[in-house]
Amino acid sequence: MAPSDPSSGSDETGARRADVRRAAAAWSGLAEPGDRTAGALLLAVGPVAALAWLRAAHDHGDRARAVARLRERIDDPVEELTPRRLLTALDRWGPRLGRVDPDRDARALRELGGRVLVRGDEGWPQGLDDLGPAAPACLWVRGDPRALLGPPAVALVGARAATSYGTAVAADLACGLADRGHAVVSGGAYGIDAAAHRGALAGDGPTVAVMAGGADRLYPAGNTDLLERMLARGGAVVAEVPVGATPTRSRFLRRNRLIAALTAATVVVEAAWRSGSLSTATHAAGLLRPVGAVPGPVTSMASTGCHRLLREHEAVCVTSVADVLELLPGGAPSGGAEETHHDPRDALRDVAREVLDGFDARRPMTLDELVPAVGLAASDVLAALGELELAGLAVRAAGGWELTAAARRPAAR
Amino acid sequence: MAPSDPSSGSDETGARRADVRRAAAAWSGLAEPGDRTAGALLLAVGPVAALAWLRAAHDHGDRARAVARLRERIDDPVEELTPRRLLTALDRWGPRLGRVDPDRDARALRELGGRVLVRGDEGWPQGLDDLGPAAPACLWVRGDPRALLGPPAVALVGARAATSYGTAVAADLACGLADRGHAVVSGGAYGIDAAAHRGALAGDGPTVAVMAGGADRLYPAGNTDLLERMLARGGAVVAEVPVGATPTRSRFLRRNRLIAALTAATVVVEAAWRSGSLSTATHAAGLLRPVGAVPGPVTSMASTGCHRLLREHEAVCVTSVADVLELLPGGAPSGGAEETHHDPRDALRDVAREVLDGFDARRPMTLDELVPAVGLAASDVLAALGELELAGLAVRAAGGWELTAAARRPAAR
Repeated sequence: MAPSDPSSGSDETGARRADVRRAAAAWSGLAEPGDRTAGALLLAVGPVAALAWLRAAHDHGDRARAVARLRERIDDPVEELTPRRLLTALDRWGPRLGRVDPDRDARALRELGGRVLVRGDEGWPQGLDDLGPAAPACLWVRGDPRALLGPPAVALVGARAATSYGTAVAADLACGLADRGHAVVSGGAYGIDAAAHRGALAGDGPTVAVMAGGADRLYPAGNTDLLERMLARGGAVVAEVPVGATPTRSRFLRRNRLIAALTAATVVVEAAWRSGSLSTATHAAGLLRPVGAVPGPVTSMASTGCHRLLREHEAVCVTSVADVLELLPGGAPSGGAEETHHDPRDALRDVAREVLDGFDARRPMTLDELVPAVGLAASDVLAALGELELAGLAVRAAGGWELTAAARRPAAR
Repeated sequence: MAPSDPSSGSDETGARRADVRRAAAAWSGLAEPGDRTAGALLLAVGPVAALAWLRAAHDHGDRARAVARLRERIDDPVEELTPRRLLTALDRWGPRLGRVDPDRDARALRELGGRVLVRGDEGWPQGLDDLGPAAPACLWVRGDPRALLGPPAVALVGARAATSYGTAVAADLACGLADRGHAVVSGGAYGIDAAAHRGALAGDGPTVAVMAGGADRLYPAGNTDLLERMLARGGAVVAEVPVGATPTRSRFLRRNRLIAALTAATVVVEAAWRSGSLSTATHAAGLLRPVGAVPGPVTSMASTGCHRLLREHEAVCVTSVADVLELLPGGAPSGGAEETHHDPRDALRDVAREVLDGFDARRPMTLDELVPAVGLAASDVLAALGELELAGLAVRAAGGWELTAAARRPAAR
């Protein structure tokens, strides 16, 4: 166990931290992911007091009075904690009180080499706090939680029904990011997610999967080997629900906000017109984190969601690792990998370019021939010839000038 | 000859129009395309007076005095008509005076069934005026000039070195636009241009090629059949340089501003990182006309220019005819062709969706089973069940509810 784990401490602070951790773990099973009333309550009074209040209110019956007393304790009431919302929430949370067992669940996680992280822990990813009342009560973490504490992490997400194009691009991007030390975060699913995790492993970087169900269930089963390999190689598997929790559809969708919040940028590699990956992008945009989308053939249904993101101006077009890096805080313009080859003609002033065009490439030409051919003044043509000579594109020949081989080479129109 | 052609008139106005047409045609050979000094001069004093001045200044020697006299005639001198610029321009234009022959060239064009259009003619495309001093002196038009006077025309441009993907998309877009009456304008080149023209023909719509050289030269030679077919089927071939003029590199680049100015929107289908098609997009943006770019695989060099346009936010991502129509004046949001299939689950409120997820699909469930499974209040679960029933997703069954086939069908995550 890492020395920073306060649940192992025996002093008073350590004991209180252990209570906080236990209560937060309980809350992660009492409230569904993203329950803003629960989140607001935990932010207002902390998980220990919130749990004590819930137990008392549920056991003793006079709920209206319990709610009123709670509201007296909160200095600055928030919209999530109106009496009506709290009363409705009691109906949601109360029936689960008898079913949560944070000590049992934490023990089960420890047996898998994992630990529960709460706000304030050294390994707690700060980015989660930006979720406000939608932040998770705690994180159930297997593997190395430090995977998320290095250079800014990047979410690479996309469709399960990916094409070979999409998985190749996802793996390439992930490999390049991992190679530069950026953790790659995804959802552990088939398709783009798995390709991203695999690419990061290939680049020898940490990669993190956020589960929709409990961290004990490596889901989907077909990716168990991949997820085990990630755990063995410095990565992590994290969840906001206790061990044993099932991955429901709504948990999948809400899990996506964690992927967005854990990373500095979200890139959607392939997504159908309706796709959960788009919800990750929406969450990222809502958190004011940059969103990228990888374009693909317009004939590919698997890219329609990415093109939708590009059209709706939420997303930046991403075609390379350099483009992803540019999305990150302090990212420099990539300049474009295609800029590497240099054609001396690219640097010419317009006039010199026109004189170049006016040349008959097969023979030397005199100034008097060039002037009407180009439609420029003689003095301009002469200056341009000097420029072409310096650029290695023209040389003096008997009675005039002629083009060099560099000038005769075909250029992009 | 169309009755609106003023060169055929015999009254005084007709005679003056013929002079204007002849002088403008001369200017199209005296000044290179986009020569802003020539354009400003024509706007200031008209082509007839500008030509008379040029002849006098060139023949009689005292150029400084000629320039001074000209400037006295111009009420509101513009930056293109400073003494220095006019003197330099005389050096460019003068040597060509002996070589232009607008009557001969107009005759040659008439023999090909064409005509010279000038500003003020019925068929003159108004969009050209937005070019200001960079507007062409005249248009040398073969085919039907009315091709550009229907619903807003669209420029579809792109690389000569296109892929089969790019040519297929260009042809599809062009066919769909033509089918809706929009003229498709391009450059007549191999690759994307030719595919766009062919697609428009397939859609039975007018399509217009803008040549970099004279309209008599159907360029490139390999596209002669295509260009002839366009002429025979209500389309046009236009140029801003006289018949016989050669298509130089700089004329190709400047021709692109005409493609942008003749159309209401420019869409780049495929383009390398450096490509003349990007200059068409830049001209369109400069004219405040919308620019679209078709995405493609990030692994395709032929799409790098399109992705560059998307990244630099000049261009809107275009994947369909509907997307192109949305770029046009008054274009309505396309809504997306992929929106056509309806899943009753898409319209559910979050609560109903969560109850749906909480169901065990294999058996009926009671309210008491559903409440803890879903983690919602009983009253909420009951309301959600009503909603699911209305949506045809759940039905009452012995002692509870069960899912219908529609609810058990797999959905996009």
